[in-house]
Amino acid sequence: MKKLTVGIFIFDQVEVLDFAGPYEVLSRARTVPGRESRRSDESAPFTVFTVARSKSPIAAVGGLQVIPDYSFKDAPDIDILLVPGGAGTRPQLDDALVLDWIRRIAAEAKQTTSVCTGALLLANVGLLDGRRATTHWGSLDQLDSLDRGIVVDRTSRFVDDGIVTSAGVAAGIDMAFYLIEQHCGRDVADETAHYIDYPR
Amino acid sequence: MKKLTVGIFIFDQVEVLDFAGPYEVLSRARTVPGRESRRSDESAPFTVFTVARSKSPIAAVGGLQVIPDYSFKDAPDIDILLVPGGAGTRPQLDDALVLDWIRRIAAEAKQTTSVCTGALLLANVGLLDGRRATTHWGSLDQLDSLDRGIVVDRTSRFVDDGIVTSAGVAAGIDMAFYLIEQHCGRDVADETAHYIDYPR
Repeated sequence: MKKLTVGIFIFDQVEVLDFAGPYEVLSRARTVPGRESRRSDESAPFTVFTVARSKSPIAAVGGLQVIPDYSFKDAPDIDILLVPGGAGTRPQLDDALVLDWIRRIAAEAKQTTSVCTGALLLANVGLLDGRRATTHWGSLDQLDSLDRGIVVDRTSRFVDDGIVTSAGVAAGIDMAFYLIEQHCGRDVADETAHYIDYPR
Repeated sequence: MKKLTVGIFIFDQVEVLDFAGPYEVLSRARTVPGRESRRSDESAPFTVFTVARSKSPIAAVGGLQVIPDYSFKDAPDIDILLVPGGAGTRPQLDDALVLDWIRRIAAEAKQTTSVCTGALLLANVGLLDGRRATTHWGSLDQLDSLDRGIVVDRTSRFVDDGIVTSAGVAAGIDMAFYLIEQHCGRDVADETAHYIDYPR
């Protein structure tokens, strides 16, 4: 089975769990169950990496310093784009370079997803026009006010209407398990949840 | 209120969610509820940072590259020590520099905690002798076999018997909320869970 690449966009003041939750879940999935299979990437259905505007270290919310694996310029092809949120989302909303990159990658990717206020970024490039979507509870009204025909879901942990959006921070973990289930089946998702001791 | 410092030990092949889960939870706690209070550290009860053997970047499980905030040599005083686990735990178990550091910091800290197989490191320096403790389900037998009088808890998400140990990976998130509850009360823990959309 060809591995799917997952490109996680990171930026200054990205919320830690927004990207680290899905990173953990998707990078630890294995189609062969057990602890042994986690010692190599052989049965890993996903190849997960971080991408940022440049390869300079970013400081996530709280100060966690992360070195991006790739920049916009040298990132490999992305099958699944994941856009997290956080306090640093706002400056990205007006950043033409970022918006162009998201637009371009989303057009090429098999699937585009967001966690938390990352949905605002997807909305800003028109990806959520006319779709059902969700975001952090504190930003539901903002998503609703964008006048883009977005049908805001105020109750679900995540919503898949072509584009997959999740509710706040920790909901990205649940969305990641949904992605595993979709691409690899329920057993692989459940076994990965068991491996990382996450009660689905 | 004086902030409590939380020193999170990181190392090559540390499990991402082991450190990033508690990092998120503890760094986003606020004694003043709401989104506004998260814009500054004013009402943050904890100051969270990462510490490693040196300040060179580490590669967590899956490849996530993190720059440690401090090395063993220059880390500030640590009130709460958090030792995560992961595939990289094994090499740490024989590393005198690491074991000495954990022993020294644990002796000075108000509280010592572990996530997942981080418990094996605490056990190796004698911190769990005669105590109830837990670890990742795949390492419970190993913890039990150490002949240190550790009473292994095979069912709890986390155990506090002077030293606080948690079960696998995601259980560190639950342990982090317990720490908030202990130091700041139930309301602060619940409000932080609501903020990050985590169902406690």
